[in-house]
Amino acid sequence: MKKISIGLIGFGTVGSGLYRLLEKNSDIIAKRTGIDIVIKTICDIRAEQVKKNTAGVAVTDDWKSVVADKDIDIVVELIGNIEPAKSIILNALKSGKGVVTANKKLLAEEGADIFKAMSDGAGRLGIEACVGGGIPCVLALRHGLVGNRVNSIMGILNGTTNYILTRMQENDMPFAEALQDARDKGFAEADPTFDIDGYDAGHKIALLSMIAFNKSIRFKEIPIEGIAHISMMDIIYARDMGYVIKLMGIAKESDGIIDIRVHPTMIPNEHPLASVRYEYNSIMFDCDMTDPVILTGRGAGASPTASAVLADIVQIALQDEAYQSPLVTDGAACLIEPGKRILRYYIRIQTDDRPGILSQIAGVFGKHDISISSVIQKEVHPEYVPLIFMTHEAEEEGMLRALRIIKEFDFMHGDVILIRVEDSTGAGEKK
Amino acid sequence: MKKISIGLIGFGTVGSGLYRLLEKNSDIIAKRTGIDIVIKTICDIRAEQVKKNTAGVAVTDDWKSVVADKDIDIVVELIGNIEPAKSIILNALKSGKGVVTANKKLLAEEGADIFKAMSDGAGRLGIEACVGGGIPCVLALRHGLVGNRVNSIMGILNGTTNYILTRMQENDMPFAEALQDARDKGFAEADPTFDIDGYDAGHKIALLSMIAFNKSIRFKEIPIEGIAHISMMDIIYARDMGYVIKLMGIAKESDGIIDIRVHPTMIPNEHPLASVRYEYNSIMFDCDMTDPVILTGRGAGASPTASAVLADIVQIALQDEAYQSPLVTDGAACLIEPGKRILRYYIRIQTDDRPGILSQIAGVFGKHDISISSVIQKEVHPEYVPLIFMTHEAEEEGMLRALRIIKEFDFMHGDVILIRVEDSTGAGEKK
Repeated sequence: MKKISIGLIGFGTVGSGLYRLLEKNSDIIAKRTGIDIVIKTICDIRAEQVKKNTAGVAVTDDWKSVVADKDIDIVVELIGNIEPAKSIILNALKSGKGVVTANKKLLAEEGADIFKAMSDGAGRLGIEACVGGGIPCVLALRHGLVGNRVNSIMGILNGTTNYILTRMQENDMPFAEALQDARDKGFAEADPTFDIDGYDAGHKIALLSMIAFNKSIRFKEIPIEGIAHISMMDIIYARDMGYVIKLMGIAKESDGIIDIRVHPTMIPNEHPLASVRYEYNSIMFDCDMTDPVILTGRGAGASPTASAVLADIVQIALQDEAYQSPLVTDGAACLIEPGKRILRYYIRIQTDDRPGILSQIAGVFGKHDISISSVIQKEVHPEYVPLIFMTHEAEEEGMLRALRIIKEFDFMHGDVILIRVEDSTGAGEKK
Repeated sequence: MKKISIGLIGFGTVGSGLYRLLEKNSDIIAKRTGIDIVIKTICDIRAEQVKKNTAGVAVTDDWKSVVADKDIDIVVELIGNIEPAKSIILNALKSGKGVVTANKKLLAEEGADIFKAMSDGAGRLGIEACVGGGIPCVLALRHGLVGNRVNSIMGILNGTTNYILTRMQENDMPFAEALQDARDKGFAEADPTFDIDGYDAGHKIALLSMIAFNKSIRFKEIPIEGIAHISMMDIIYARDMGYVIKLMGIAKESDGIIDIRVHPTMIPNEHPLASVRYEYNSIMFDCDMTDPVILTGRGAGASPTASAVLADIVQIALQDEAYQSPLVTDGAACLIEPGKRILRYYIRIQTDDRPGILSQIAGVFGKHDISISSVIQKEVHPEYVPLIFMTHEAEEEGMLRALRIIKEFDFMHGDVILIRVEDSTGAGEKK
């Protein structure tokens, strides 16, 4: 039996999950693949503690010794962040080792150097664990859909925010309470800013887009909006209209121009992603040959993510050349100017309760070529009137300009809320 | 660039779909994989007609010359049925060629010889196109979830029947009308018996189970029930109780015993497969590491299935050793005795309208250890009373014995309808 020696760098949630996975399932993996996967060395800054929790494995706190070890075939990098993760991966690749990583932040923000090392013919790189936890979505995209041109990707890519939005949607739980509940259940980190503000979803949609469109994407150019401003009021109004609000990563390609973004999105109840609840993630690839393909599952957690790491280890051990082929073949992506995007919008404002206001607002929309599909005026608040507009498709530039003007009217109370709408229901569209 | 020569045997829907896919997307495939895929020879009994519709390709009606051609790397078998497909595949494998097939019937019913040829170290075999059309579900199972023990598989595996049931469910269209509509829309074959009676779904769940559990399964031992007896009445009663009826392939493993079956199944509206509509397919793998992973997409059609064939071609061309490793490592599966299955049941009967009947029926259920969870007596039909029972979990043996006794009562009208219930909603279970 072929033996594959692993150098595991980082023994946190996912690292210890991989250790346990191999303890439990090595036999079945060997039977299926003919490969005996053995963790030779674990590297962690808490080396002494790791020693206590493991057996038969060398433990060190010096990553350089792991990368230099000629007997190690594959380095698994699970420490996250930029350095020393980047140096670990680059050095391991250059020494011809396979590398498996869950480091979406590094690859999304500074992947160019790593992708270059790969196309220079260095080792193989597995990134399944970067996106969607236990969902084999990178495999599906890189291998299963390799014969397709990808038209669009839409994904619920962050479990924390999906858990919070589900609680708000289904239990009328305000944002702060839903966030606390997510923390209590272990679905939110102590500091959840990175998830709530959409950056985690941003890293993931950036990576998926690079694979799908074969172009590099500058992470800083991706418009990212989180969910902290989503109120119960908007959840309820959306629900009344047959929509749910989901934090989505979206990337669409048309004539070589890529529209990539992360923002709260209103999707109709019939949309296949609308029923993805709690901490689950789901990714829809709309492709020219297959039409939509949707993958759903747990997007995080020790065991699901370890399952993804293991899948990459096996693929690399089996010498799949696809793990050596460059992800980015076509240089930098040309992103759409955000203002040129054409979408439908949900707008909520609050105004004084007196005649003539609606006509003034409608006038501003009209001047900016924004056509209104419906207006709802809700029960009168003692101090102001909530007005909800659903627009037809309009250019975002005009939309934002109109809202800046509307904001300045003296009859306005509080903020203007804008939520983008994606109406196409993809798979299972009504006949 | 590495060139891969294809011998394409069978130029029907999928074969011509593959030809068009390569015409359209060869450039992007080459860029992503470094492989130039070229159809060298097409073999079809309608060779003259194929010649008219293709260019730059040799056309023959002699499959032996294709399999014997030393310049052909991969044989794609798309003619279906047992012979000569089986001889084609065995000969191609023995001569060390890669083989890609969409022939689920052959593999499910007579796969043993083919799997043996593979474990004798012959060529590589790709079977993605056998299940789920454009959904990369075999890839997900064989590779993406390779580190998992699979607890269960539940799938909507046949587009024709899912289209019909969706029409019945959402448009109150009786079975015969829904079937005609499916034919009109191209979602049902001229003779749809094979789909309607559940055999197509049976082949697919057999194949998925072999991969998941690494055991061979005798197709003839799988209990298979189709949808021809599902009436609007049952669709409506199920809907009233918050369920939908789907034709499902199900396989569950517990302590080495496999419960595999195909039958109409009542699943709650919240179940992730309940929202899979029309001709779409969906497969849920419940695994020990990942928990449920669900894949959804088009389960048939020229382009989606060609996409699956292409994915296998690329994987084999990239020398993935997993495509050579045996699917079945553990010999024959031990199937559950159907009578020992423990499930919930929906039972509909029709009786005279007179006192004492309910107590007689309840008495029979009680004697067979079947506990009733709810009884619904619907509005009185002029000639009889429809009675619907939902049971708690019960052994199927006792259930069937009770129904045989009940059938013989003189107050009974017409058939006894039994529909199995699967209540667990898997992913997104209510917290």
